[in-house]
Amino acid sequence: MWQLYQFPLCPFSRKVRLLLGEKGVGYDLVRESPWAMRDEFLDLNPAGTTPVMVDADKGVTLIDSQAICEYFEETIDRFPLISGTAAGRAEVRRLVAWFDQNFYGDVVAPLLHERMKKRIVHRLSPDGGVLREAMKRANTHMDYMDYLLDHRSWLGGGTMSLADIAAAAHLSVADYLGGIDWTGHDPVKRWYAGFKSRPSFRPLLSERMEIVAPPAHYDKPDF
Amino acid sequence: MWQLYQFPLCPFSRKVRLLLGEKGVGYDLVRESPWAMRDEFLDLNPAGTTPVMVDADKGVTLIDSQAICEYFEETIDRFPLISGTAAGRAEVRRLVAWFDQNFYGDVVAPLLHERMKKRIVHRLSPDGGVLREAMKRANTHMDYMDYLLDHRSWLGGGTMSLADIAAAAHLSVADYLGGIDWTGHDPVKRWYAGFKSRPSFRPLLSERMEIVAPPAHYDKPDF
Repeated sequence: MWQLYQFPLCPFSRKVRLLLGEKGVGYDLVRESPWAMRDEFLDLNPAGTTPVMVDADKGVTLIDSQAICEYFEETIDRFPLISGTAAGRAEVRRLVAWFDQNFYGDVVAPLLHERMKKRIVHRLSPDGGVLREAMKRANTHMDYMDYLLDHRSWLGGGTMSLADIAAAAHLSVADYLGGIDWTGHDPVKRWYAGFKSRPSFRPLLSERMEIVAPPAHYDKPDF
Repeated sequence: MWQLYQFPLCPFSRKVRLLLGEKGVGYDLVRESPWAMRDEFLDLNPAGTTPVMVDADKGVTLIDSQAICEYFEETIDRFPLISGTAAGRAEVRRLVAWFDQNFYGDVVAPLLHERMKKRIVHRLSPDGGVLREAMKRANTHMDYMDYLLDHRSWLGGGTMSLADIAAAAHLSVADYLGGIDWTGHDPVKRWYAGFKSRPSFRPLLSERMEIVAPPAHYDKPDF
């Protein structure tokens, strides 16, 4: 059985969990707070980041969310999430990188720092200026997502792909942390409402991070 | 014919160019300074980053260095660079992400900012404290590379892979910018000396970025 090292608001772990859910791969959750820099965890992953997946029976350790997703995409045929032509797969990977790097760096990382890490690690209040800037950037990202969804059925093309999963993972963490204003983003809102109803997504939406509470609409498919 | 948008010290473009060189894929270079945020380039890639590859005849645009590498790995059989078992391929991708994220963030990004961008864009001198910290972190990364090369023929395992290419790309930019002290890193030095002699690497080492000159040892295979 796979063990997945993660914490509830890790967007990269959510991306992996959504993929595993769609592909029907079972796993046990292991709670890991990467900011605690636990020695045993650093021995497992010198980068000190979640997610990490371990199958002790197989003797396999997987590190880095994209390497993990590519591994299961290669080994589990069910529900291909990087499919189509080579150019189509490149477009899916471009968007995954966009959400993992740009959306994460512009929106999720500052929200996690201000609303979670500062509270848990430093017992400090968030900086309102940083929060406002992250929300402004979230809005710009959602404009781009609206544009994509005006031209395509799913973010990466005609079928649901890892691009949608990466986007939903990051967006859901930003939404939990109160960073998303849904007003005026009907295409993204419709797309996300559909996502929220998926069996792969429901367990994630029901989990809570201690100390930090989500807004009331967070886990409602109708919001 | 492919066109590759890049600038000489972009480590992600170097990674793609090394892979294209090993696979024997031809391309024309297009000089792009992403910090200038040229409108036509932002239309091509809203993320505003290099490398971008365009094949106008095929109507294909590729964005994000890893998406580009995966595209050519999938479409060109020659010299597989993400090969072996699924777990082996995951290890290659873990290390690629390590160099693209950690080595880049710890070492290359601050060196590029201090020694190149500040000079070209802001006409300012580099901050000595930031440079020293980047060099210290480079040393820690090279300790880890020494460790890997003590246990394996190549960084990612028994054969040369995209992990070596990503590492050489980032290391070469850091070396150009004077951020690498080779003393006491014999395994990495031997590995890098071999890399420097490869036909895929020679053209990159002969290019210069205006205003910023590399140290004397930079392009010498024997250093």
